[in-house]
Amino acid sequence: MISQHHGKHSIRFLDPPIIQAWSSVAGKKEGEGPLGGSFDKVILDSFFHQQSWEQAESKMQELALQILLDKTKLEYADIGAVLSGDLLNQCISSSASLSNKGIPHIGLYGACSTMAESLLLGSMIVSGGFYDRVAAITSSHFASSERQFRFPLDYGGQRPPTSQWTVTGSGAVMLSKRGNGPKVVSGTVGTVVDLGITDANNMGAAMAPAAFATICTHLSDMNMCIDDFDYVVTGDLGALGVEALVKLAKKEKINLEGKILDCGLEIFDRTTQDVHCGGSGCGCSALVLCSSLLKKIHAGKLKRILFCGTGALLSPTSVQQGLSIPGICHAVAIEGAT
Amino acid sequence: MISQHHGKHSIRFLDPPIIQAWSSVAGKKEGEGPLGGSFDKVILDSFFHQQSWEQAESKMQELALQILLDKTKLEYADIGAVLSGDLLNQCISSSASLSNKGIPHIGLYGACSTMAESLLLGSMIVSGGFYDRVAAITSSHFASSERQFRFPLDYGGQRPPTSQWTVTGSGAVMLSKRGNGPKVVSGTVGTVVDLGITDANNMGAAMAPAAFATICTHLSDMNMCIDDFDYVVTGDLGALGVEALVKLAKKEKINLEGKILDCGLEIFDRTTQDVHCGGSGCGCSALVLCSSLLKKIHAGKLKRILFCGTGALLSPTSVQQGLSIPGICHAVAIEGAT
Repeated sequence: MISQHHGKHSIRFLDPPIIQAWSSVAGKKEGEGPLGGSFDKVILDSFFHQQSWEQAESKMQELALQILLDKTKLEYADIGAVLSGDLLNQCISSSASLSNKGIPHIGLYGACSTMAESLLLGSMIVSGGFYDRVAAITSSHFASSERQFRFPLDYGGQRPPTSQWTVTGSGAVMLSKRGNGPKVVSGTVGTVVDLGITDANNMGAAMAPAAFATICTHLSDMNMCIDDFDYVVTGDLGALGVEALVKLAKKEKINLEGKILDCGLEIFDRTTQDVHCGGSGCGCSALVLCSSLLKKIHAGKLKRILFCGTGALLSPTSVQQGLSIPGICHAVAIEGAT
Repeated sequence: MISQHHGKHSIRFLDPPIIQAWSSVAGKKEGEGPLGGSFDKVILDSFFHQQSWEQAESKMQELALQILLDKTKLEYADIGAVLSGDLLNQCISSSASLSNKGIPHIGLYGACSTMAESLLLGSMIVSGGFYDRVAAITSSHFASSERQFRFPLDYGGQRPPTSQWTVTGSGAVMLSKRGNGPKVVSGTVGTVVDLGITDANNMGAAMAPAAFATICTHLSDMNMCIDDFDYVVTGDLGALGVEALVKLAKKEKINLEGKILDCGLEIFDRTTQDVHCGGSGCGCSALVLCSSLLKKIHAGKLKRILFCGTGALLSPTSVQQGLSIPGICHAVAIEGAT
């Protein structure tokens, strides 16, 4: 087997997997945002006809997968494996969505970096010849996240200005050996970076150093520069996180201004939607990628992006114990079909 | 790229990765059990000189990785990636153990199936030519698990007779393209199976159907029979789970009696150690594999095992909501060097 390992931590796919289809299922607030028109489905009921928000989130993953199958005219049995994860304790919404469906399930945890993590691992699995086709899925839900990570919604806690709004929605991608569509050409597995941030309401700052590390590693491993990409797409750094990232880069004489497109800033209109620093959650980068971004790449409006999923590796327990919040960032480079 | 996909859900590695080294770090109770003499390190202090049990668990993963490096005379920079996960909310002990070490981290969640999941994915990554060497690590801790999944220890809750004892410890494996050692020759990615068990104190019963499904799939995909293996090693079904598995198999006219070696039953002496149905937790199958099993395979005392990691996909929230507990089982076939 020829090595596809490139540079320090990166992979160049000799046989790049193809993003054969993508799907997006968004919540009401996301549907009212700037990308509202580009989602496959907007769910107005936060419970999605289920008994709990956790189950609603699970149902969203199920629907995102179903839309993928509809678009590709495939069935459950045609999928080699589903790689998925979410923010809930024990990733319960991902596993529940696949219950008794007979699809092999690879459970991931990468916090809000899960969309990029699943794309990167899924690409290795397809490109390595292990399965012809895998689905990469993730989700988050504002209400299930709030009560797990912060306060019960009924409590009506004030959110500080540095906080971000967890996106409700699920995004899914079908990676395939064959077909027509954008390609995953390379990727970088992130490292855990901890600069000592302890404020669970300022996760952008906690994730920015990890994002910067992964962007630098990818560029240097691939011998590329920032202008080889239309955009460096970050997961959900939010307004403060993007600012921190640009500053970090400037210190190293890298100019990221105008090059960063942050999914947390894309998904909501911060002037009219009360989201403070922007969106967050696994569903945030998943929804932006699986609606407008992949559409633009497929239509030739974008040539190449570096999709950098950013995750804050905290738990309610680690925060209560006063521990700092490490960040991680996984990246995949996605190109239009040539 | 040649397809390594085999049968329905299985993979046959054309270029089987080698288990170059393994390590085990166990807690006090595990050290007092039947395998006590075969662990690399037994930690007598449940806090492992840390401030919390969660941090102690993290430190155990760190030590397991360090022992792997010592055994192979390698450094952090020589590892392509660490694939790891645990039972704690947001897999915090895995990510914290890699903080600022500069090693690419692929976070997994597979409940107690994580050792098998990380071995299977790690094998794909090495065999696919993406990294020359990856580490697969997992852990669990009795005290951090009890307070998260059940009751604070101080509460002194009675454990029902069907319950299992979460193992304290961490196991790690170095998978490599080259070298000498047992080989991962094939594997099966598990599906989520839910037969409606709702008792969070009877997880063996919840996992047995998933174990049976994966064992059958692996045998049929590989065109093998049960006697091709010295043992089918199950993760942590415990006494009741093994009984359920053997019964399920009997119904399908498959005789598993004498063929199942359950890590939950191996790690403790149920007659003298108060563990009810046996051990459980990610650390359970990890410790048994990374001490006596791999040693026996390497010494030629075992020729081939099917290592089946079993996971109960519950969360405290899903249990409180009265939902049933789905199970999953990932399997890897491990052979001695020929």
